[in-house]
Amino acid sequence: METPATAEELPLVLTLFPFPHIPKIKEEFSKKFTTLFNKPENSISLQQFLTTNPQSPSVRVLISYPKTPVTSEILNCLPSLGCVLTVSAGTDHIDLVDCRRRGIAVCSAGTIYSEDVADFAVGLLIDVLRKISAADRYVRAGLWPVKGEYPLGSKLGGKRVGILGLGSIGSEVAKRLEAFGCIISYNSRNKKLSVPFPYYSNVIDLASNSDVLIVSCELNKETFHIINKDVMLALGKNGIIINVGRGALVDEKELVRCLVQREIGGAGLDVFENEPNVPKELFELDNVVLSPHKAVLTSESFEALHELILANLDAFFSDKPLLSLVKND
Amino acid sequence: METPATAEELPLVLTLFPFPHIPKIKEEFSKKFTTLFNKPENSISLQQFLTTNPQSPSVRVLISYPKTPVTSEILNCLPSLGCVLTVSAGTDHIDLVDCRRRGIAVCSAGTIYSEDVADFAVGLLIDVLRKISAADRYVRAGLWPVKGEYPLGSKLGGKRVGILGLGSIGSEVAKRLEAFGCIISYNSRNKKLSVPFPYYSNVIDLASNSDVLIVSCELNKETFHIINKDVMLALGKNGIIINVGRGALVDEKELVRCLVQREIGGAGLDVFENEPNVPKELFELDNVVLSPHKAVLTSESFEALHELILANLDAFFSDKPLLSLVKND
Repeated sequence: METPATAEELPLVLTLFPFPHIPKIKEEFSKKFTTLFNKPENSISLQQFLTTNPQSPSVRVLISYPKTPVTSEILNCLPSLGCVLTVSAGTDHIDLVDCRRRGIAVCSAGTIYSEDVADFAVGLLIDVLRKISAADRYVRAGLWPVKGEYPLGSKLGGKRVGILGLGSIGSEVAKRLEAFGCIISYNSRNKKLSVPFPYYSNVIDLASNSDVLIVSCELNKETFHIINKDVMLALGKNGIIINVGRGALVDEKELVRCLVQREIGGAGLDVFENEPNVPKELFELDNVVLSPHKAVLTSESFEALHELILANLDAFFSDKPLLSLVKND
Repeated sequence: METPATAEELPLVLTLFPFPHIPKIKEEFSKKFTTLFNKPENSISLQQFLTTNPQSPSVRVLISYPKTPVTSEILNCLPSLGCVLTVSAGTDHIDLVDCRRRGIAVCSAGTIYSEDVADFAVGLLIDVLRKISAADRYVRAGLWPVKGEYPLGSKLGGKRVGILGLGSIGSEVAKRLEAFGCIISYNSRNKKLSVPFPYYSNVIDLASNSDVLIVSCELNKETFHIINKDVMLALGKNGIIINVGRGALVDEKELVRCLVQREIGGAGLDVFENEPNVPKELFELDNVVLSPHKAVLTSESFEALHELILANLDAFFSDKPLLSLVKND
């Protein structure tokens, strides 16, 4: 019989949030790994915590999430680090260049959330076009018997939908919207040869030829405020913007102005520039649907994420190929 | 040059609501037909109106809508009637047997609304599973910065969806939900040979094998309260009911009890038993989405309806085959 390893002998994993949530995985996790975690009640910065904690030099893996950037300064405190696993699909909070220089592998959540985010994008779009949330407020306020029929919505079928970023989320959105009879086109860094949809290299051209823009691209220096005033004006008075990417992909101040002044038709927003703060002007509008960055939040995707992280940890500590490895290009 | 016909010479059409709404069709309509309409301010019943109106015997076509039943008594007042055109897909408000006996043709809206209703059903389902309306309320109430992350939703892909009534609406729902990775089965009067989905002749069996029920069948004596307590209990604690058919397809009292006591997981309801009255107990629940019978209400479907009615009128008065003729079987 093997003697169970003591906590000191188990590999040390730094988690930047209380991982894992799921009981059955929690148990498996605690048998295999020791956790280092800066509890919120400590109220010291992560860097202070790591600088003063005697275990920091032994940390082998870091489980990261977007709200806490993984900077050179953090990496300096972790000389034994071999792997960063982020719970997000995006890696814009991780200094990938410095990780590569130090020989630290980075794994993301890969495409685990893509279907859920695509579902949510379609849900937001139907909601904005067909006024579902607004009509639900109308019924709950008791207005149906008083004011009668709710104003007409707009049909989804036949709408020209421009997708920004035809990666795994954008492709899933396209697949779904084709079943509703939408006409798809897209913009991305490069034209994709295997894709049948029209490609626009210029976002303004995409907007001019679309009734709806779905924003599902990566946030980086090139895509910051990619949806600016000119794009919104090109989209036009009846145009709808759905953002399930990152808040800063859209110039939010300009978006609010266009919505308030009816220069665009509506918006479904899961992400905002200054989360959890949402511009208050939007609270009064019936042509917007506001969601608290939850497009990825399903119990199914959480379970898949936990299993992926566990599988990556097992792979890392047994020198097997990592799953969902991020390529530094 | 032809002399324009005077109002007296134009065929007389009785409209049970102020048709048409769309200006360009209004103009075309008024050039071709004379309208008889019991204005709401008259505050007399339709039968009183028809009995006392000297034009009633000359009415050739009746444009009907579901709120005003077309009964034998109404038909008795209209001896020259040759055609009833209803603006609804359903004809449960029309005495079809008596129409047939009198040789009156009946045309419905056919499949004009099917895509819009299917879109709406999918929108309601995503909303209930992913808590879109509830999360929008959360953001608008300013709770995101205070209470943090919104509770997890449930993934659409992989859900077993049972469709009640695989007619034109149900088929459009199936087509859409397949693109999301749902597993479809159905119940209808008869198994459809051309359909690849599993068929359940018994609604309780369908419910036992489904995570979601979509109610999109016709309301008649056989389908009244087809979703009863036993069906809801078979669907179970996480089960979701989407009703885009008619309110009376579901035992509403039982539905409210099951929702309040969490015996089913949630509901998306566009129709109710006693419209426009919605059971107030539902207003407090976050697992329901309430909609004021608006699944058909888009500007696109309205325009299509107006064109269909005009085309049917033209066909009727020029002895050509009617479009969207209802077969009396």
